[in-house]
Amino acid sequence: MTDFSKTRAAFHLPDGVIYLDGNSLGPLPVAAGERLTRMLTQEWGDQLIRGWNTAGWYVQPRKVGDRVARLIGAAPGTVVMGDTLSIKVYQALSAALDFVPERRVVLSDSGNFPSDLYIAQGLLASLGCGYELKVVKPEEVEAAIDDKVAVTLITEVDYRTGRLHDMKRLTAKAHAAGAITVWDLAHSAGALAVNVTEADADFAIGCTYKYLNGGPGAPAFIYVAPRHAERARPSLSGWMGHEAPFAFDLDYRPAPGIERMRVGTPPVIALTVLDAALDVWEGVDLKDIRARSIALSERFIAGVEAACPVLELGSPRNPAERGSQVSFRHPHAYAVMQALIARGVIGDFRAPDSMRFGFTPLYLGEADVDKAVAVLAEVIDKRLWDTPDYHRKASVT
Amino acid sequence: MTDFSKTRAAFHLPDGVIYLDGNSLGPLPVAAGERLTRMLTQEWGDQLIRGWNTAGWYVQPRKVGDRVARLIGAAPGTVVMGDTLSIKVYQALSAALDFVPERRVVLSDSGNFPSDLYIAQGLLASLGCGYELKVVKPEEVEAAIDDKVAVTLITEVDYRTGRLHDMKRLTAKAHAAGAITVWDLAHSAGALAVNVTEADADFAIGCTYKYLNGGPGAPAFIYVAPRHAERARPSLSGWMGHEAPFAFDLDYRPAPGIERMRVGTPPVIALTVLDAALDVWEGVDLKDIRARSIALSERFIAGVEAACPVLELGSPRNPAERGSQVSFRHPHAYAVMQALIARGVIGDFRAPDSMRFGFTPLYLGEADVDKAVAVLAEVIDKRLWDTPDYHRKASVT
Repeated sequence: MTDFSKTRAAFHLPDGVIYLDGNSLGPLPVAAGERLTRMLTQEWGDQLIRGWNTAGWYVQPRKVGDRVARLIGAAPGTVVMGDTLSIKVYQALSAALDFVPERRVVLSDSGNFPSDLYIAQGLLASLGCGYELKVVKPEEVEAAIDDKVAVTLITEVDYRTGRLHDMKRLTAKAHAAGAITVWDLAHSAGALAVNVTEADADFAIGCTYKYLNGGPGAPAFIYVAPRHAERARPSLSGWMGHEAPFAFDLDYRPAPGIERMRVGTPPVIALTVLDAALDVWEGVDLKDIRARSIALSERFIAGVEAACPVLELGSPRNPAERGSQVSFRHPHAYAVMQALIARGVIGDFRAPDSMRFGFTPLYLGEADVDKAVAVLAEVIDKRLWDTPDYHRKASVT
Repeated sequence: MTDFSKTRAAFHLPDGVIYLDGNSLGPLPVAAGERLTRMLTQEWGDQLIRGWNTAGWYVQPRKVGDRVARLIGAAPGTVVMGDTLSIKVYQALSAALDFVPERRVVLSDSGNFPSDLYIAQGLLASLGCGYELKVVKPEEVEAAIDDKVAVTLITEVDYRTGRLHDMKRLTAKAHAAGAITVWDLAHSAGALAVNVTEADADFAIGCTYKYLNGGPGAPAFIYVAPRHAERARPSLSGWMGHEAPFAFDLDYRPAPGIERMRVGTPPVIALTVLDAALDVWEGVDLKDIRARSIALSERFIAGVEAACPVLELGSPRNPAERGSQVSFRHPHAYAVMQALIARGVIGDFRAPDSMRFGFTPLYLGEADVDKAVAVLAEVIDKRLWDTPDYHRKASVT
């Protein structure tokens, strides 16, 4: 049984803050600072260039990848870290398309995170040759999988609504239609009991700064199913994915297996922080995470609906069809969220009218949920959001 | 006049080590640890998601880019940070090819860093359509620039020999032939008085973990000449390069200017370290760097040639044709380098037979050079390299 009091103590949570935005940026793990200081002084500082061997920097993308692998139900040696999620989308989609050279359609949905769509648009424009990105509504994906689809590029959990795709079912449908699947797990890894092996996913990618708490801009991951690993062509063929990077050959030869998905020099400092953040996951059972995430989300929905009838649930009501976040809609969602943040309840706004609240069992409990509901109710009841300060246009968050 | 005693004091240099490998990985800036601790606790820890606005994370790639811009002779607003050098090669080459759609040849040389060639191979294979990567010897580049060449992809300083291309001259030749230039400044930025504006370069890219001391895996930079910035197509079209990332539109529209070369979420932690490392460059005149780099390199060459006639200079003898590193060749270069490292003189080995020594005026002086020469002479004279331990095959460094 996961000890959630222990995991909560592993994070720095500012006084007076209820943090319901861990689905956007996880909080600072208490151990990160010391770990990073040690890395800076004892590894970089003292070992200098030798750290690539002696401190294990060179193998870090694979070692940290193995730790992420456990959290997405992947076998060791099938996940590697690096770059950003957008880059990994490009790699995965590009490699996936090679497996179905006679087809031209990439299928995605309008609930996908825009960056995935942008990257697909850029890649397909580069490829030319009649490639097409077909974007349907989330609920139409299943019906749209036909024998014209080369690759499905789907984010399991909708960033705006929390709507959850059935990865296993859609993958089976895609395979039956002769298509390859690329799953974006940005809002899944660390939030659900993801199992890419059981779902038979072909490629999976994700970021680590949300539920995995790796810090702002933490490195991404890519999973390639073992059956594809030796055939996947790395379109971003950097030297770290070469069979023998330090032979400095003039011609590229992909490394065996997942290593070929490495590109440039790994982000050692960021991977060190992430590694410290992953320590918190030791002893954590993903089934416990999922159960508690549902309990907290249900409690929040019930509380908000009882206290604030003006708010409209923007997420699926059935928890089995939802990730670990809950959205509520309000015509002045931006202003309401500003009022909440000013009172220490941090969620985020997503245009045009959604307030998004993430539930992260590693460091949130019932008392946090109840407090958040109470503050939200007060903000709505007393129209505390209706001040000029809170009506400015959304900028960056 | 640059105060080199001040810059030297800004780095952590382990006792008993003479570090001649700052051209591979610069040393730890003393201020990095405190800066990073502050960022972790006061920014990530306390501001959480709000840090994107309140701590300036979102604009960091551009702000740090402006600091790098000064070091490569670029105007503010023309450089942006992110990803790795290999990724930036892909972006720059891909964008450059669009400017010359009727041509099919990318010209590079065998002294280019292999990752640049690998990335070009991968990109051209993806594009199909008869694209060709033509790799000539470094000394043949100028003659090979003809009206078939779409893009020249050249690293200014040869990673193995230190051989320096004449950026201004080759750029002029390329432009006269109707080609676009992509300059890799990996071994130039912070080592030479680079001036991309004066050289009229079209695109330039580089890493920051060598002479700029940003730490292992520090983010890369990309420069786009202002005349191209509004027309350059970002093939890696991630959301951070979108005109309005937080509008979450389904279609990609490139941001104005250099911002379109951003891809995914920026590596905030790594950029923070780099920013601390760039503080050291305040008040540093690149002309002083170049003058002192030449003085140190000349002293080293003279010393080694006097003391170790068995070693063959692998770099151009004329300092005007050399970057900030010197290579010497020896049939057992790997073993000799191991013996040196064991005695605190850290350079590196590059297959098949080169020992590479970098001269970084920010933290090296004449006494370091003389000591390095003395140790090398002893290793050679007494055949200290000839032990089984030093003959193992090169692994990672």
